[in-house]
Amino acid sequence: MNREARATSQETRKLTALKRKDLLGIRELDVDEINLILDTAEVFKEISTREIKKVPTLRGKTIVNLFFEPSTRTRTSFEIAGKRLSADTINISVSTSSVVKGETLIDTARNLEAMVPDAIIIRHAVAGVPHQLARMVKTPVINAGDGAHEHPTQALLDALTIREHKGRLAGLKVAILGDIAHSRVARSNTFLLTKMGAFVAVSGPQTLLPPGYDQLVDDGLMVTPRIEEALEDADVVMVLRIQRERQKESFFPSLKEYAVRFGLTEERLRLAKDDVIVMHPGPMNRGVEIASEVADGPYSLILDQVTNGVAVRMAVLYLLTGGSAAKLTSSESVQ
Amino acid sequence: MNREARATSQETRKLTALKRKDLLGIRELDVDEINLILDTAEVFKEISTREIKKVPTLRGKTIVNLFFEPSTRTRTSFEIAGKRLSADTINISVSTSSVVKGETLIDTARNLEAMVPDAIIIRHAVAGVPHQLARMVKTPVINAGDGAHEHPTQALLDALTIREHKGRLAGLKVAILGDIAHSRVARSNTFLLTKMGAFVAVSGPQTLLPPGYDQLVDDGLMVTPRIEEALEDADVVMVLRIQRERQKESFFPSLKEYAVRFGLTEERLRLAKDDVIVMHPGPMNRGVEIASEVADGPYSLILDQVTNGVAVRMAVLYLLTGGSAAKLTSSESVQ
Amino acid sequence: MNREARATSQETRKLTALKRKDLLGIRELDVDEINLILDTAEVFKEISTREIKKVPTLRGKTIVNLFFEPSTRTRTSFEIAGKRLSADTINISVSTSSVVKGETLIDTARNLEAMVPDAIIIRHAVAGVPHQLARMVKTPVINAGDGAHEHPTQALLDALTIREHKGRLAGLKVAILGDIAHSRVARSNTFLLTKMGAFVAVSGPQTLLPPGYDQLVDDGLMVTPRIEEALEDADVVMVLRIQRERQKESFFPSLKEYAVRFGLTEERLRLAKDDVIVMHPGPMNRGVEIASEVADGPYSLILDQVTNGVAVRMAVLYLLTGGSAAKLTSSESVQ
Repeated sequence: MNREARATSQETRKLTALKRKDLLGIRELDVDEINLILDTAEVFKEISTREIKKVPTLRGKTIVNLFFEPSTRTRTSFEIAGKRLSADTINISVSTSSVVKGETLIDTARNLEAMVPDAIIIRHAVAGVPHQLARMVKTPVINAGDGAHEHPTQALLDALTIREHKGRLAGLKVAILGDIAHSRVARSNTFLLTKMGAFVAVSGPQTLLPPGYDQLVDDGLMVTPRIEEALEDADVVMVLRIQRERQKESFFPSLKEYAVRFGLTEERLRLAKDDVIVMHPGPMNRGVEIASEVADGPYSLILDQVTNGVAVRMAVLYLLTGGSAAKLTSSESVQ
Repeated sequence: MNREARATSQETRKLTALKRKDLLGIRELDVDEINLILDTAEVFKEISTREIKKVPTLRGKTIVNLFFEPSTRTRTSFEIAGKRLSADTINISVSTSSVVKGETLIDTARNLEAMVPDAIIIRHAVAGVPHQLARMVKTPVINAGDGAHEHPTQALLDALTIREHKGRLAGLKVAILGDIAHSRVARSNTFLLTKMGAFVAVSGPQTLLPPGYDQLVDDGLMVTPRIEEALEDADVVMVLRIQRERQKESFFPSLKEYAVRFGLTEERLRLAKDDVIVMHPGPMNRGVEIASEVADGPYSLILDQVTNGVAVRMAVLYLLTGGSAAKLTSSESVQ
Repeated sequence: MNREARATSQETRKLTALKRKDLLGIRELDVDEINLILDTAEVFKEISTREIKKVPTLRGKTIVNLFFEPSTRTRTSFEIAGKRLSADTINISVSTSSVVKGETLIDTARNLEAMVPDAIIIRHAVAGVPHQLARMVKTPVINAGDGAHEHPTQALLDALTIREHKGRLAGLKVAILGDIAHSRVARSNTFLLTKMGAFVAVSGPQTLLPPGYDQLVDDGLMVTPRIEEALEDADVVMVLRIQRERQKESFFPSLKEYAVRFGLTEERLRLAKDDVIVMHPGPMNRGVEIASEVADGPYSLILDQVTNGVAVRMAVLYLLTGGSAAKLTSSESVQ
């Protein structure tokens, strides 16, 4: 397969540094950049298993978590990642922000920049806001989720998790199930996985499959309302979170109906390969999009994803603040 | 007295480490464990008096404050305790938590665990939640207050305060006054003090004395609606906070009525011993459960309690993350 | 000019330490103290330009941000200042505070003090609260804004910014425009600038010029409803934020009306000197009190103010926790 070959051949040309200011989405990354981040994350992952889970790598750096949407897990994951690298972390959440006072994004951005942070992590309900921010400031900006657009560190941690368990990404069939229309996780994963030579099958209720999604990437992508078709012979199944508020918007009749028709049960999972792995970005609605016995089953890697999230975010913070993979392997930086 | 002798004799058998994963309540602790924590807290207390109030003991450890109920003083006390031991502290409060999104406790718990914290401190309005959490994760869990059940670090800091001023706990009469029915502080103190050989007299309005409280422990406990009986010859008086919202539930007619009939005034305090000490877990309702002249009187140890709170929490964090008293006295860890 | 001569002559008598416990307002500071803080801030400013933006100066110190009013920029600025000095910072915001539970300020204050912090930074909607707090505790207290009273670190960072660009404060004409009546920034700046020998012209709608403001200081101050008079030949123009909620209180007919009659436009700015500099404490209402082309113009120092805010707060934290300028210049403390 062409995409596979391309992805694999490129792996020989090893990058040692990330030559971009920001991490805004997966769409603009190339295979080498993705591999660099995943390889760096693997090195950093070991730190969280140590007795003293901290390295001085980012000592004296200031990292700002600027969250316009509430989030426990992503904010905490970035905060822990920063602290394990010895950075100083500053949390700013919308409720206490002067955005309430009607300040424009550009002024918030420039003001933050004037305090000389080394990275700004931003989550916002509106797609494209991190990109606007990135254009406004010289500081590296990391998109921690923008509307239904991208959530690049989620796709990277998913990729790291798959690679750990399958040894590769190229050639795998990955099913992504659920609310495709509103999911930044689906989009970032679709970009990443197809770039890396995997085949992606997305499925969900017709009302939650956005028209044109099949044109998101050139090839390696199938969109189908038939969940069985997506699951068939899948190596990996990613289940998306159903946002309960969507029900009010009449995208589906009821949570129960959703569970019966689209929930990932053990029975449905039997359509996939025997060594399938199951993932979910969390937080889960048990009994809705995923049955508890699947979430807790032996093929479930949901907690590996969380662990890998810290490692991927350490890698991204390191690389965007000028870190190089060459330095890392010479093991100066992580002593 | 039997209990006194028992408590005292046991003090000769010195523990050097806490052989349990969690601190969930006082009920399950034995005398040696309580003494170990108090002795360790005494060592750590000195750190907060130094010019540089910080030791590297928990460097590279991650401590999570998971608060489902708002709290300034307990959260701040744990956060300062962690920071003075050089731990990284992460605050998660319910308003920004994904619990809002309907995630189950078990998923919140496992997700946190997957980020490899070294201790989780939890406060929750529902009794037993910290115990559930502790069963779900390998991480040490510290109960920072669960419903009307237990608040073990409060009882420990109270015990440290009494021991400092009376030289012992065994043989003392301790009056606990107020809303006994809804107080985790009363329960944890009742367990601790009776275990350590003190005699506890609890008192409050009949409507706030729960039936069966007298059977909480085997002996050393008296329950009486007559505040004078509890106060008579007391060595220690602990005044509990009246929660104003209880008034709406008709447990007592009015705050003023409560103050007149059950508030600790100087006059009432004269029933206690001449060298009585007065304590309150805070925040106080001055003029309701305690008169200002008592709260600010020379026998009041209310601020000593707060200072000791930091020391006790340092000790608990240290012991639950594998610290040993032996190491401490060899003074390697607190340099 | 008398004031100028006085301010300048005093500059020869160099202080090396701040002989006061608290920083509550500019009114009580003398010229030497102001110069000491500004000179110290200049030294600290360099730290934020380093690769490793952190010095061990306040290692082991605990700094509490006690904010009863929401604030992003001031809280973040103090937090970054503390962290760049290696202090531990604790954030307490009103929504999670036990003040909600009805505790008195004195109990909140004493409780905080009992945890042995090294400085308390307080913002409160009521004028005088930081002063009350300061009397109650031995801990240094820094006023981060109290009602319409004072905001001393804002005036200090403004002064640092002017001094950097004009080389001096004495002899300059500074126009302060906007809602003078409700502005702690206007008051603190009026005190500081007139003390340092500058001439201050405040202007705004008559309804927002409080009677008696002209008697705030002995001389060097003019109050006028004619914005042109204030702007004429000004070396510095400070534009204050219009709080949108004031409109409801009928201080002015509409935001649009305000913009037309009092907003700082390029045209109005031409009344000032050719080398005028423009400042705003933020957050700005673009198109209301300040036109975007002015805010973003070459004479605008709005972002320099933010950068200088971190430096001034580092200086204040350092000096109030016992730091001395002598030590600094011997460069032990900032290595």
